Amino acid sequence: MAGEAGKARTVLLATEKAFAAAAVTKIEDVLKAANYTLKKLENYKSKDDLLAAVADADAMIIRSDIVDQAVLDKASKMKIVVRAGAGYDNIDLKACEGKGITAMNTPGQNANAVAELVFGMMIVSARNNFDGTSGFELVNREIAFYGFGAVARAVHKLAQGFGMKSFAYDPYIPADKIKEMGAEPVATVAGLFEHQYVSLHVPLTDETKASINKDLLGKMPKGGTLINTARLEVVHEADMLEAFS
Amino acid sequence: MAGEAGKARTVLLATEKAFAAAAVTKIEDVLKAANYTLKKLENYKSKDDLLAAVADADAMIIRSDIVDQAVLDKASKMKIVVRAGAGYDNIDLKACEGKGITAMNTPGQNANAVAELVFGMMIVSARNNFDGTSGFELVNREIAFYGFGAVARAVHKLAQGFGMKSFAYDPYIPADKIKEMGAEPVATVAGLFEHQYVSLHVPLTDETKASINKDLLGKMPKGGTLINTARLEVVHEADMLEAFS
Repeated sequence: MAGEAGKARTVLLATEKAFAAAAVTKIEDVLKAANYTLKKLENYKSKDDLLAAVADADAMIIRSDIVDQAVLDKASKMKIVVRAGAGYDNIDLKACEGKGITAMNTPGQNANAVAELVFGMMIVSARNNFDGTSGFELVNREIAFYGFGAVARAVHKLAQGFGMKSFAYDPYIPADKIKEMGAEPVATVAGLFEHQYVSLHVPLTDETKASINKDLLGKMPKGGTLINTARLEVVHEADMLEAFS
Repeated sequence: MAGEAGKARTVLLATEKAFAAAAVTKIEDVLKAANYTLKKLENYKSKDDLLAAVADADAMIIRSDIVDQAVLDKASKMKIVVRAGAGYDNIDLKACEGKGITAMNTPGQNANAVAELVFGMMIVSARNNFDGTSGFELVNREIAFYGFGAVARAVHKLAQGFGMKSFAYDPYIPADKIKEMGAEPVATVAGLFEHQYVSLHVPLTDETKASINKDLLGKMPKGGTLINTARLEVVHEADMLEAFS
């Protein structure tokens, strides 16, 4: 984490929605130790603010902030863009590559937070938003994961605590590896939709965009529930509204 | 479950808030197999309905329905009252004893359902009722149980899945037994209130009534959260409103 000897470096923290104060303090401490200058652009309101701020930055830390060609064009000293979080669909990777800028993400860092959110939503839904009517228990029910990366595995861990049965499909993880982690491998995406809960954990790419469509949603059993803590664009919204109406 | 040979028996199912249909079907099946007559009084609106219905019943199944001296006085054939659920503060035990009527409950049957509810409420609370602002994770946080019976132990099991640390006090369970079950024994009720979450799992008795008072609530740390899935009367409500205002 030490700075290159004799080089002054400026790290821009550009967060349209600011981090928690405690996290910012940790960032400040690390950069101070490395003798880097921290420039904070938190809760900014317009893209112009971002365009102005990147001009003298050697590196930048972002959240869901959009880093596109226009931003990179203004960032003549930029060497690295770090996206806090797993999904980097907000960064124009081709534009980064064209300028020799490294783009990084932090997969797994938010995994448990998202997993807890998934269970919060599942329970509230199973209990009819706490409206006082009878709901049902999650124990012994089935949850199927589309994508079995860090977040899905954190949800799976909690699901085991709840006595649920896990199923998973991930094009990049072999079936025996999924089995080893305690989930039942599923051969196709469509196969996931035979289970009561389907939880989405795929990145937003050209391949996944709007991929959760009428065909898949139509396969869900009565009472089937789709959980989307991935990007909203992976679901074909019009199809979903039709399927769940 | 077989009926006494030659005896006609009537079992009254008296539920001011009816069971789920599937549960009623199971009750029907069991009683049919035993050659008993099932009499259903579901979703009744007045106590008079209950007073009329008990007259010819040999046994009754209830939920939170009030079975007091007046009800028992009308139930001249009654031999047993079964309360579906753990808390039997709705049954006048002294009156039952006076008439030689057995009262039973079903502890543990709802334990997991309550435990899931506790986690649903904790997550929703930690996430500020899903209002979009930053919340926090439950992992590594502390939960202290007042009472360590079936429900508390079910909550504890889920808490372990969430990576939380459990503490417990129960006047009827020795410290080493609590430790054996994976929770840290606490010596006094007051000691529980040093932890972030305090979850109540005591029955409503003369001793526990309004026992969660200003003194105890005043010991809670900043951000402390009281979870009451026991009876509302165990909390001194005026004190609570003052402590949390």
